[in-house]
Amino acid sequence: MPTLRLALCQVNPTVGDLAGNAGLVRSWSRQAADAGAQLVLFPELMLTGYPVEDLVFRRSFVAASRAALHRLAADLAADGLGDLPVMVGYLDADGPPQVSADAQPGRGARNAAAVLHRGEVVATYFKHHLPNYGVFDEDRYFVPGDTLTVVRVGGVDVALTICEDLWQAGGPFAVAREAGVGLVLSINASPYELNKDDVRLPLVRRRAAEAGAPIAYVNMVGGQDELVYDGDSMIVTADGTLLTRAPQFVEHLVVHDLELPAAGTPGGTGALTDGMRVVRHEIPAIPAAPTGPAADGGIIEPVADEAEVWHALVLGLRDYVDKNRFPSVVLGLSGGIDSAVAAAIAVDAVGPDRVVGVSMPSQHSSEHSRTDAEDLAKRTGLDYRIEPIQPMVDSFLANMSLSGVAVENLQARVRGVILMALSNQEGHLVLTTGNKSELAVGYSTLYGDSVGGYNPVKDVWKTLVWRLAKWRNADAVRRGQTPPIPENSIGKPPSAELSPGQLDSDTLPDYDVLDPILIGYVDGDLGRDGLVESGHDPAVVDKVLRMVDTAEYKRRQSAPGTKISMKAFGRDRRLPITNRWREDG
Amino acid sequence: MPTLRLALCQVNPTVGDLAGNAGLVRSWSRQAADAGAQLVLFPELMLTGYPVEDLVFRRSFVAASRAALHRLAADLAADGLGDLPVMVGYLDADGPPQVSADAQPGRGARNAAAVLHRGEVVATYFKHHLPNYGVFDEDRYFVPGDTLTVVRVGGVDVALTICEDLWQAGGPFAVAREAGVGLVLSINASPYELNKDDVRLPLVRRRAAEAGAPIAYVNMVGGQDELVYDGDSMIVTADGTLLTRAPQFVEHLVVHDLELPAAGTPGGTGALTDGMRVVRHEIPAIPAAPTGPAADGGIIEPVADEAEVWHALVLGLRDYVDKNRFPSVVLGLSGGIDSAVAAAIAVDAVGPDRVVGVSMPSQHSSEHSRTDAEDLAKRTGLDYRIEPIQPMVDSFLANMSLSGVAVENLQARVRGVILMALSNQEGHLVLTTGNKSELAVGYSTLYGDSVGGYNPVKDVWKTLVWRLAKWRNADAVRRGQTPPIPENSIGKPPSAELSPGQLDSDTLPDYDVLDPILIGYVDGDLGRDGLVESGHDPAVVDKVLRMVDTAEYKRRQSAPGTKISMKAFGRDRRLPITNRWREDG
Repeated sequence: MPTLRLALCQVNPTVGDLAGNAGLVRSWSRQAADAGAQLVLFPELMLTGYPVEDLVFRRSFVAASRAALHRLAADLAADGLGDLPVMVGYLDADGPPQVSADAQPGRGARNAAAVLHRGEVVATYFKHHLPNYGVFDEDRYFVPGDTLTVVRVGGVDVALTICEDLWQAGGPFAVAREAGVGLVLSINASPYELNKDDVRLPLVRRRAAEAGAPIAYVNMVGGQDELVYDGDSMIVTADGTLLTRAPQFVEHLVVHDLELPAAGTPGGTGALTDGMRVVRHEIPAIPAAPTGPAADGGIIEPVADEAEVWHALVLGLRDYVDKNRFPSVVLGLSGGIDSAVAAAIAVDAVGPDRVVGVSMPSQHSSEHSRTDAEDLAKRTGLDYRIEPIQPMVDSFLANMSLSGVAVENLQARVRGVILMALSNQEGHLVLTTGNKSELAVGYSTLYGDSVGGYNPVKDVWKTLVWRLAKWRNADAVRRGQTPPIPENSIGKPPSAELSPGQLDSDTLPDYDVLDPILIGYVDGDLGRDGLVESGHDPAVVDKVLRMVDTAEYKRRQSAPGTKISMKAFGRDRRLPITNRWREDG
Repeated sequence: MPTLRLALCQVNPTVGDLAGNAGLVRSWSRQAADAGAQLVLFPELMLTGYPVEDLVFRRSFVAASRAALHRLAADLAADGLGDLPVMVGYLDADGPPQVSADAQPGRGARNAAAVLHRGEVVATYFKHHLPNYGVFDEDRYFVPGDTLTVVRVGGVDVALTICEDLWQAGGPFAVAREAGVGLVLSINASPYELNKDDVRLPLVRRRAAEAGAPIAYVNMVGGQDELVYDGDSMIVTADGTLLTRAPQFVEHLVVHDLELPAAGTPGGTGALTDGMRVVRHEIPAIPAAPTGPAADGGIIEPVADEAEVWHALVLGLRDYVDKNRFPSVVLGLSGGIDSAVAAAIAVDAVGPDRVVGVSMPSQHSSEHSRTDAEDLAKRTGLDYRIEPIQPMVDSFLANMSLSGVAVENLQARVRGVILMALSNQEGHLVLTTGNKSELAVGYSTLYGDSVGGYNPVKDVWKTLVWRLAKWRNADAVRRGQTPPIPENSIGKPPSAELSPGQLDSDTLPDYDVLDPILIGYVDGDLGRDGLVESGHDPAVVDKVLRMVDTAEYKRRQSAPGTKISMKAFGRDRRLPITNRWREDG
């Protein structure tokens, strides 16, 4: 059996940065070659980043992607890496025009993969299964491919597949078996969700069994607006053995030797699954088999949920800040748990020198709101400031006749104006820190505490915010460092402090009661009856569901934030604002 | 040849209001019956409203739609309308489960139509072509139907189709010809776009020719978040003759007699276009042919573009306000053209008693900013107030060290806080009034002048804002009324008045230069080269495109507003915020 040394390049491209992304391919291919690799994989849409959304409709952009691909092939050869086959995702408009009754305006582009060798694009593949659920809109953009591409590499028949091809039965993996391939490559841009890594491995195992061949799975890493790609690249054999698995949330090069069956007589020329056909290519020569010990990529064990989420939030925020070239971030520090956790995430993401925290006390602010914020600043080393809001609040109250909730919201909005003024004056990105529970029930002030360009905890239920805080502090202790989050911020009852003695529990059920209802309603699409059958108090369910339904307009104008759940507010959950449907009739 | 009296009910349902929408069907069916109708049509998804978006994933909602349909059938019979066949759109989860490799999570619902008769659901049809472009995400929600439903009504074979079925060649209309039907019904929820009515009639003609039968086309009317359905219902014969056409933007009952061929021996049982099959039903009895003169629905001629857009904006705003049950609206009046036009739209939409206009002068405000706002208030009769912002601005300046753009934006944000305080105190919906040109280039203050729950001019280019103002004033003169918009607001050079002597032209090209570039880039997806080839100055193109690209984060948090163009900001145009692609490299 031939042995191939594979390199899985789990890298972090940036949407739209064709030159920069091509540069990543060149530098990581060099590293792979130095490690003796004979076949190198990069993620889905590596050259353009993912998702490029409506940039697909810009002909100039599609043309630039194609041009960048051919330039990359030439550059790799010029780099002395011509013999090394490199599989890379790119955006194409090529392929036979697929005319059907379902052809829709604007479609025609391809989510494509290419194998580059000796300065040429020697093979291409177009994604067959297109996801059009959750955050994905690929039926909007792409025409599905109907051809499985098989490339003979070092005497082994290797099939090319892209991401969603793996998530649906039938199609390319079944065809790969019919074509008798020895290896399937799967390149991905698979966004993180809590527990998704627990789904991925069994999924890859099922498809490896379906294909009757090992799968080399490489995933993107990095943040892109609300999405974080977590890596988790791996190689799994046909019998389900996990050979190697990369860590999550970091760029990583997996180099692993794989014994593979030599290609026989090509089969699979008759009628194949899903109406697909097979196109075969052969690469005449690859780098010589390396001498020395076999390469083993090793297996990284999964970490605890809290650690996983924390790293996702840190990476999501860091990439939003850095890819958009913000010098620093600013956020309000209330002494409460949400802003404390957001600040700790920010410090982990970009370092304390790039984080400004502002305490903005009012007449309703408790003493501990200031001392806890100050304690947080000391623990983390962020740039701490105090901007009392009472003079500005008073100037509004002196000139307008306001009462009740108008006065409460006024305080939050003055704080928003202060943060935006600091942003305009000093160039910071403003972070907003409303958790998912608050967003769900609309427990926030529009243009007040919701002001900000990014929300690190947007998709984090309040009960998970607390768990994250405890985990982060305990992790610091384990590493002999100062826990960043004041115990007092974790322990005290939540309050917006917009009126005397106000507590969240005046308006909302306890979060231990609230969050499970919200998880069922938002993440699970359960209706009233389903929630009541799950054991929740009908009166509480009715109250909560009504709050969620009537807060849609606030969410529509909310800042983006990192998705970590199976259904995040944003493109993952699309609901009308004007909507008279009420679960309680 | 039998004659059938058709009633096309161009009505205005509300998303989620199943009981209210069923009530509309009952009251309009009664009117249709009183006019002697023998077959009545209501729009696509009449019972649920359109689009219901992710409510499709709520089983409770789908079940409620099905229950409402069966209750409606019974209620119509109880109303004494049992013999009258009524075609109505609803949401279903029924039909043979369609299992394919492309089956995606969450899909399974049906965009359905039913014919109700004698208390029963006697026939159903599932939409075959699903739109997944522009504002539409139907591949996310629905499984396509593969069966054409033909119902024999009064001796005529009548085929049922839904909306997008009409916009694509092949499919139901070709199958209708193969099945030898005498009439095709087309029920729609087709959102307004400028000039779409010019596309619809030729389209209906093409499909009528394809089917070899007349088409009765009924469209929804009314506003739903960013969409406005414009009606424009019609009947067209197989040879392309327009028999009747309803007005746009108003509820309307079209009653029209149609001579149709008697059904012969059913054909079309072999292999049909697009893999569809045909299912046939027969309705045993319908109301007797009415005596007296033949009913003629008449033909409404299209109106001028400005009139069409104005009516769309008025209806879009009115329905957002009323369907969401706001008592009134409030907006800032700067004396400029955008707020003046928005105020005039608001007054036309909900009446002057429900519109509050607030002048919020600063030290940089011109004298005419106040006098022009006051003039507008007098002309329209809206509730006019003055809230000077300088005391609040000064309190921020006294407590923070701000300069330049931070001071400019501060003024806009203080105005935003004032409007939101009035909203909280008095219950108004806040209107924001940034036009599409401003939104495109980011010429606005986030959380400042962008504050608001709805934007009546969001999709209106600045040059069109001026045209609308002139049209509305001239129309008032034609009708012997006071022109609502001060001539001075139309004539003066645009300015944000946030610094001394500031004009839009300090920062932006003239709008006559800017708008055509924006239209090419935003609406047309032209790249830099395409725009330069169209004759635009390359330096201006580069500057404008960069402004558009870097303002994406502002648009992501912008208020919804009525779509009137082929590509509105919002769900129509989906671009990443984090995006390093620049057309000028």
